[in-house]
This record gives sequence, structure tokens and C-alpha cells, in this order.
Amino acid sequence: MSVNPVRPVLWEIDRVRLIDQNRLPQECTWVEINRSDEMANAITTMIVRGAPAIGVAAAYGMYLGAREVEADSPTEFIRGMEKIATKLKATRPTAVNLFWAIDKMMEVVKAQPGNLPGILAAAKQINADDIRTCEAIGDHGVAALPKTPGKLRLLTHCNAGALATAGYGTALGVVRSAWRDGRLERLYADETRPRLQGAKLTTWECVQEGIPVTLLSDNMAGHCMVKGMIDAVVVGADRITANGDAANKIGTYSLALVAQAHNVPFFVAAPLSTIDFSLANGSLIEIEERDTKEVSHVGATVICPKGVEFFNPAFDVTPARLIAGIITEFGTFAPADLIQLKDQA
Amino acid sequence: MSVNPVRPVLWEIDRVRLIDQNRLPQECTWVEINRSDEMANAITTMIVRGAPAIGVAAAYGMYLGAREVEADSPTEFIRGMEKIATKLKATRPTAVNLFWAIDKMMEVVKAQPGNLPGILAAAKQINADDIRTCEAIGDHGVAALPKTPGKLRLLTHCNAGALATAGYGTALGVVRSAWRDGRLERLYADETRPRLQGAKLTTWECVQEGIPVTLLSDNMAGHCMVKGMIDAVVVGADRITANGDAANKIGTYSLALVAQAHNVPFFVAAPLSTIDFSLANGSLIEIEERDTKEVSHVGATVICPKGVEFFNPAFDVTPARLIAGIITEFGTFAPADLIQLKDQA
Repeated sequence: MSVNPVRPVLWEIDRVRLIDQNRLPQECTWVEINRSDEMANAITTMIVRGAPAIGVAAAYGMYLGAREVEADSPTEFIRGMEKIATKLKATRPTAVNLFWAIDKMMEVVKAQPGNLPGILAAAKQINADDIRTCEAIGDHGVAALPKTPGKLRLLTHCNAGALATAGYGTALGVVRSAWRDGRLERLYADETRPRLQGAKLTTWECVQEGIPVTLLSDNMAGHCMVKGMIDAVVVGADRITANGDAANKIGTYSLALVAQAHNVPFFVAAPLSTIDFSLANGSLIEIEERDTKEVSHVGATVICPKGVEFFNPAFDVTPARLIAGIITEFGTFAPADLIQLKDQA
Repeated sequence: MSVNPVRPVLWEIDRVRLIDQNRLPQECTWVEINRSDEMANAITTMIVRGAPAIGVAAAYGMYLGAREVEADSPTEFIRGMEKIATKLKATRPTAVNLFWAIDKMMEVVKAQPGNLPGILAAAKQINADDIRTCEAIGDHGVAALPKTPGKLRLLTHCNAGALATAGYGTALGVVRSAWRDGRLERLYADETRPRLQGAKLTTWECVQEGIPVTLLSDNMAGHCMVKGMIDAVVVGADRITANGDAANKIGTYSLALVAQAHNVPFFVAAPLSTIDFSLANGSLIEIEERDTKEVSHVGATVICPKGVEFFNPAFDVTPARLIAGIITEFGTFAPADLIQLKDQA
């Protein structure tokens, strides 16, 4: 089977091309990004989404910004780039990779202000590293999955896939590696209201690569586990704190509680760049609240009458005690052992 | 405040009128039902839904059937009615009220075969009794709710409202009584995928009567409970077994697990007719699986690509150990004490 790997962020000669993830799965179209403003807007409007993919996109956004800065001196250039960094950081509050990638780019900017080829090379390096990181996560994840008599039935929430990274995916990286190794029977995908990333993106990635996938409404996992249909849960993360608490798409926490009640192991797959050692625990993570239209609508369809109020938190925090293992590019860690990675960060 | 009470099943001179619940909340239209076939179809297609409302609708369906039976003898009439009963019972497998109401009507048919006015009077009695039952459930429920310093923030799943009964509702009966007594701050309503009865019906009922209501995606309850936003959960039931296990709309079980993790009391509100003392526990309840289009679509919109598979269980079972109290027209019972009601059934 020769399948073109899914790559949501591509550098092409002098610009970035992004898969417009708001238009999947109906059509796979590309958006061209020539300016840092356009990149900031693409992140805010979720043309590109998923913590690692946002990091890669923002790194290229920093290079696009470097092309725009008019400066007579290194100091002025750095000052200009700090404004670009601030603008790009203001796009999404929860994903730590965004800040990590921008800070990494600022280091390069400060080391060689005005060296555009060097700044572009740094962004490309972040891009390539992310793909290698995901492949390592996938392989470590397969080794951590439970040994079952039959093939594995995995459940995931939201999209921590190739589309959420530079390629291959974190949680879906584990799924891809399991499929490649002949250990996967089927993936169950939560649709993931309100934005339906599971229904739209995760299933699309699976269909692209021939991985058997069953779509569930978000509230069906409990019943599936009662029926013994799920061997393990694997999800991504937008930010993991020093103690192993993990912020991920809204609904992840409820799913972890349900998994615990059924002794179904619950794994979080994420690169080191997702781990925020500066925060002691998940209660300190800022949770983004998004437009209430995401709850009141599905696509263009209004699902409720006028006069209703809404609450739309985009993420929740799964406490470390519900997590069997955190799968990183350096291996799988119990949440309490995550701190061992601090020196690598 | 003078509000017309919501009545989804109305007898009018010589026919039944049903609110078409598939067209709410966009428009409140009525469907006229003149024949037992039409009633069976209305139940299958969920023009009328909700266990008690289905029971009332089926009772009228039995009368419509009685008008259709051509019989030369009481025995023939009863045989004809048994066919009507079989047809109406085949519409939905899980709601015990359906079978209860039809069996009750068959008793009347057997006691006075061919007595059409008597059969109609029995259906009207089931209708009137259901409204009185819901009002009693509402009042007992308010007494059972936790005593909080402030007003109550309740959460419900699906629609166990006036629309699901002959009027007033079971879970929403408790909400209505709490609102009437000035004890309710706000209702949080799960949207309840895949059919969105919470978004479409529960919020609609609340807006009709000025009850403050916040719509949530089904996966947000855990985060809301972390934030201390919910004082109690109240849901309906489609069937409750002798030990207090309760089958209700898919997602109820996961919600009960989440509530337990936060020590938020979880109540089930249902009439005696919902209790099936013939079943020892919930593992014996048949769970209806519905059309996969409910999962792949929202309204006319497809949410996933081609090549995906689906699973669509309509209900799940919440075990008795997760239920703080079962609120009936005879008072609120711990699940283990439910058996005390057996002689009333």
C-alpha cells in the first residue's frame, strides 16, 4: 500500500501551504500563507490546529515576519521580531507548543538577527524534528499498549493526528504504528463536539490510509466499555504539567473517568515540547473559552431555539492519577516519572 | 406568568394530535393521527418519543385500532386487538411504558370487548394519570434535591420533559417544580447526540416557560463539575429494573460516572410504570441500536467522510450504585428500596 503521508503544513519555495482543516472532510483544499498576519489568522480560525502543528506553523510565521521587519540595526530587528512573536502568541492561549516554537525561533533571531536563511532553516528544522518526534512516539506507544489475545481495539478523542502535527501524529502516530505492525483491529473515534475534529479529521486520516475506523458520539464510550469493545484509550495533549496532569480537548477528562471505571488503560501521547515544567499542576492551566456558536451550531445548522445560553470551554484537564502512561519521543513514562525529562526540555 | 403547558399528545374529538418532535425547535407543528398504523409509524419515527409519552400515544393507538377491528364476536375482537397490540409493541424495544400501556389497554379490551367508549375512556385515563404522576414526581424531586446555600444548578441529559410525557415531565418535572418554588438558579442541558433531544427539546421547553437554560456539548459535564458549577444531576429513564439499574438515553451512564467522581448526586426521575420488576438487573435490558445515519449526520449535514463505520446504541444502563435516588410519584427511593413499590405495580 503506497499512501501519500498527510502533511498539513508545507514550506514551498517562498511561502507556506496549509491544508484548510475547516473544510475537511468534504474537500482537501490548501491555503497559501505569505505573511505573518495571515499565519496568525490561520491559527486563530483553526485552518491549522493541533498543538504541534500550531508550533510548526508559528515557526514559519516567525520567518514570514522576519521578511516583513524593516530595521536598520540588529536591535531594531529584534524589537520588530518581538512584536511578531507577541502577535503570534496571542492567537491561542492553551497550546504550549506555540510558545515553545516561537521562543525557540526568537533564540535564533537573537543569535543571528537579520539572517533570513538561518531563520528559515530553523523553522524547517522544527518542522522536520516534529515528524521524527511523532514517529518515535508512535513506536514507543505500540510497545506500551496492553498485550491482548486478539488485535487491539483503540479509542481516541479529537484529532491528535498527522493533521495536528507536522505529520504522522501523536495519538494517531501510536495508532499508525500499531496498524503498521499488524496489532490494530480497529480505531474507535469520538466525534468530538463541538467542532467535530474526530468525525471530520481523525476518520478522514484513517480512511486515507485504510485503517478501519468506527465513529462514535462522544457519550457512547461508557456503553462500549461495558460491552468490552475497547482495549485502551490513546489521546493527545495540548499542555502537560510537571506532575503529569494533561490538558486536552474538552471531553478528554470525562473519557478518562469512564476508562478508569472499566480498568481500560488511558494513555496520553505528546512530544516533550508539550510538557510545561513551569506549571506544577493542571489547575494552573488557562482554559480557552471559544465562540458560543460552536455549541449552538453544527456547520451552518442551528440546533437549539433562541433564548438559550451557552458554555464552551475548549479544553479540560485530566489529572495524572487517571493516566496509565505518557508516551513521548523518549519513551513512555508514568506521570510521576515525567520529571525525569526536565533536563531534556 | 401564564404559560400554556406543553402537551405533546392531545385527544381531539375523534383523533389524536401529536407535536412533531422531529421539527422542534425550528417550528412547533402538529401531526394528526387517525389510524393505529399511523400511530405505530409516529412512534417508530420519533414524532412522539420519551417513554411515558410513547405509552400514552400507544394507548390512544389501541383505541384507534379498536375502531378498525371488524369482528363478529368478542373473541374475534380480542384476537384483532392482539394483532394491533403486537404491531404497536414492535415500534420501540426499550421503553417499558409502551408495553405497560398496551397491556393495560388489553385488560380493558378483554373486560369489555367492542365497548369503544370504554376503551377510549381508558386511554384518556392513562393520559390524565400521566400528567398527575409527573406533577407528583416533580414535587417529590424538589424535596429530595440537596440543600445548598444558594439556588440549585441542575444538569440533565436528553429530554425527560413535558414532551417526553403527557405533560410536565419527569426529570424536567423536578426542574419545573424547583423553578416554581424559587429554588432553581439554572438548568444545564446536555445537547444529547446523536439526535440532540437536549439541544432541540429540553432547551425549547425551558425557553417556553422562562427557565434559564445553558446548553452544553455532552462531553463538558466533567469540566463543569471540576469548576463546581453543578449541584445535582436529574435524568429520566426508559426502563428501571428491580435492583434499581436504569436504562436511559446513551450517555447517561458516562454522566453518572462523572457525577460520582465529583460527589454530585445523581437522580433518576420516572413513574412506577417505568419500573420493570420482571427483570432482576440492567444487564437483561435489550438495548436498541438505531440507524447509523443518526451518527453520521446532524440534520441533513454529513459530518464524516465516506468509508467510516458506525455504532449507534440508543440507550445505556446506569447501575444502581451510581444513583442517589429514584424519584417516583410515590416518593424518592434508594435503588435498593425500590422493591417496596412492587405491590403497587
